[in-house]
Amino acid sequence: MLRGVGDDAAVVRARRFSVTSLDAIVDGVHFRLDGEWRTPREIGRLALAGALSDLAAMGADPGEAYLLLGLPGGFGEERAIELVRGAGELAEECGAVIAGGDVVSAPVLTLSVTAVGWADAAEQLIGRDGALEGDLVGVTGTLGAPGAALAVMEGRAPRGAAAERLLARARNPAPRLAEGRALAGAGIHALIDLSDGIATDAAHIGRASAVKLAIRLHALPLADGVREVCAELGGDPWRLAACAGEDYELCFCAPPAQREAIERALADAGGEQVTWIGEVLAGEPGAGFSDEQGGDVPLQGFEHRWD
Amino acid sequence: MLRGVGDDAAVVRARRFSVTSLDAIVDGVHFRLDGEWRTPREIGRLALAGALSDLAAMGADPGEAYLLLGLPGGFGEERAIELVRGAGELAEECGAVIAGGDVVSAPVLTLSVTAVGWADAAEQLIGRDGALEGDLVGVTGTLGAPGAALAVMEGRAPRGAAAERLLARARNPAPRLAEGRALAGAGIHALIDLSDGIATDAAHIGRASAVKLAIRLHALPLADGVREVCAELGGDPWRLAACAGEDYELCFCAPPAQREAIERALADAGGEQVTWIGEVLAGEPGAGFSDEQGGDVPLQGFEHRWD
Repeated sequence: MLRGVGDDAAVVRARRFSVTSLDAIVDGVHFRLDGEWRTPREIGRLALAGALSDLAAMGADPGEAYLLLGLPGGFGEERAIELVRGAGELAEECGAVIAGGDVVSAPVLTLSVTAVGWADAAEQLIGRDGALEGDLVGVTGTLGAPGAALAVMEGRAPRGAAAERLLARARNPAPRLAEGRALAGAGIHALIDLSDGIATDAAHIGRASAVKLAIRLHALPLADGVREVCAELGGDPWRLAACAGEDYELCFCAPPAQREAIERALADAGGEQVTWIGEVLAGEPGAGFSDEQGGDVPLQGFEHRWD
Repeated sequence: MLRGVGDDAAVVRARRFSVTSLDAIVDGVHFRLDGEWRTPREIGRLALAGALSDLAAMGADPGEAYLLLGLPGGFGEERAIELVRGAGELAEECGAVIAGGDVVSAPVLTLSVTAVGWADAAEQLIGRDGALEGDLVGVTGTLGAPGAALAVMEGRAPRGAAAERLLARARNPAPRLAEGRALAGAGIHALIDLSDGIATDAAHIGRASAVKLAIRLHALPLADGVREVCAELGGDPWRLAACAGEDYELCFCAPPAQREAIERALADAGGEQVTWIGEVLAGEPGAGFSDEQGGDVPLQGFEHRWD
């Protein structure tokens, strides 16, 4: 960084292609400041997670993050510093730097983040639109933890060991930057991050690529504790995992010949494991889910909150 | 732009140095959605003005703008489209492109903007920290229109021909991108945009450069209509011009030898005229204002709203 905080704008030495994403979180919409569930530090971290996850979903190298705080009256300098500290910690873990920002007054706490990544070649970046018939569908890590944690936060599921594991993960979102770069380098065709749930996000790939992603619902990798909390709730853990969102894992389509290279690349990057969950077919553009007997499972309009 | 709306992030071919600024405006803080004074289109325009003005204040070439909308329930698609249209119009006038963005829910209308500019050489960019003893202090265009317009909007000054001219200007902020580039190319030492009023912003240059900007208050160029509205209000138009802010003009320090080259560069760029308002002295870092007899005029704590 050549110029940062204290001048009119931040100046950074660029690489050939810039990759830019915006995201915002608002008190009462994406988190509750008055709840017991997230400290200001964790809220700062949460704010950065979405925009950084979008960079991961392009296979970009992380660069700078810019943080705009909308602070309500009486929020206090100490908590504002904690917000920035939390954001800075996640940036550092992901290989990014907080390079600037601004503060304005707002009626409720609002954090708006711009994340900038870089690439030396356009081919290094993977969009949503390259999936081909015959590709395998893979997903990194495990799904459903933030959705199940929400049920705990909202008092619909009891506390306990499983709940605590889910809460810990929901409070510490981890965008998959290293995984995104490893996948992009291993010959995948299409890539997206799971912010709205794989039922929605896999359909984005399908529509952008004009193919159908056929996914086996029970192949989805469940996060530790999801099954237990869903048993308490009387809900289906795979539906929750497919629909609840905020997982920040990556979903991708790749030719079968690359399967082992991809698994090796993720392992070499020290990244999350891949689970192969389906394949790409011709057919109505979008995503379809099937049960263990191969029957269609409609997930559209499924309300993960059970209320 | 290689990838834009519809993928996880926008991809843009970069130049050597990126220049990035964030700004946000919030209903009830920076504008009033329920007032008669600004249409959604003008609010979109206003949102972009601050961040683009920061690029002007570096002498950067404008590049992309990214717009994040926080929309309250029931805001409606039509008005949201008008916001984006207004932002897009100002971007186009300034030579920038809206390259991406996002929409979230928020309790009140919130627009958060990231503006990215570019430069091929670091020396092309001008910070706040280069002013030298002996430099002249210049300002582009005219000051005070948004401050005086606010008095009209708040019902403290009557409508009339002067008021209408002020309102028209306040509704159509115009960041000085062309002027910023022309100044940066004409050998100036320090540059800032006037968002908080020259009393505050000139002091930023002074402190960053460890010099004192000595400014003749009555040399400030008043915008058309400011004098008339201040006469109605019983206020001093020069104090208003110095303190009210949101002018989005540029203030700069330059060696006297460059005076004519600067005036010519601004004229060649089709830009606003320059007014020479003071000089740079050794002394306590900051800015000082003097009256026509050379006496100090304290402006710190001056409340431009007179209420």
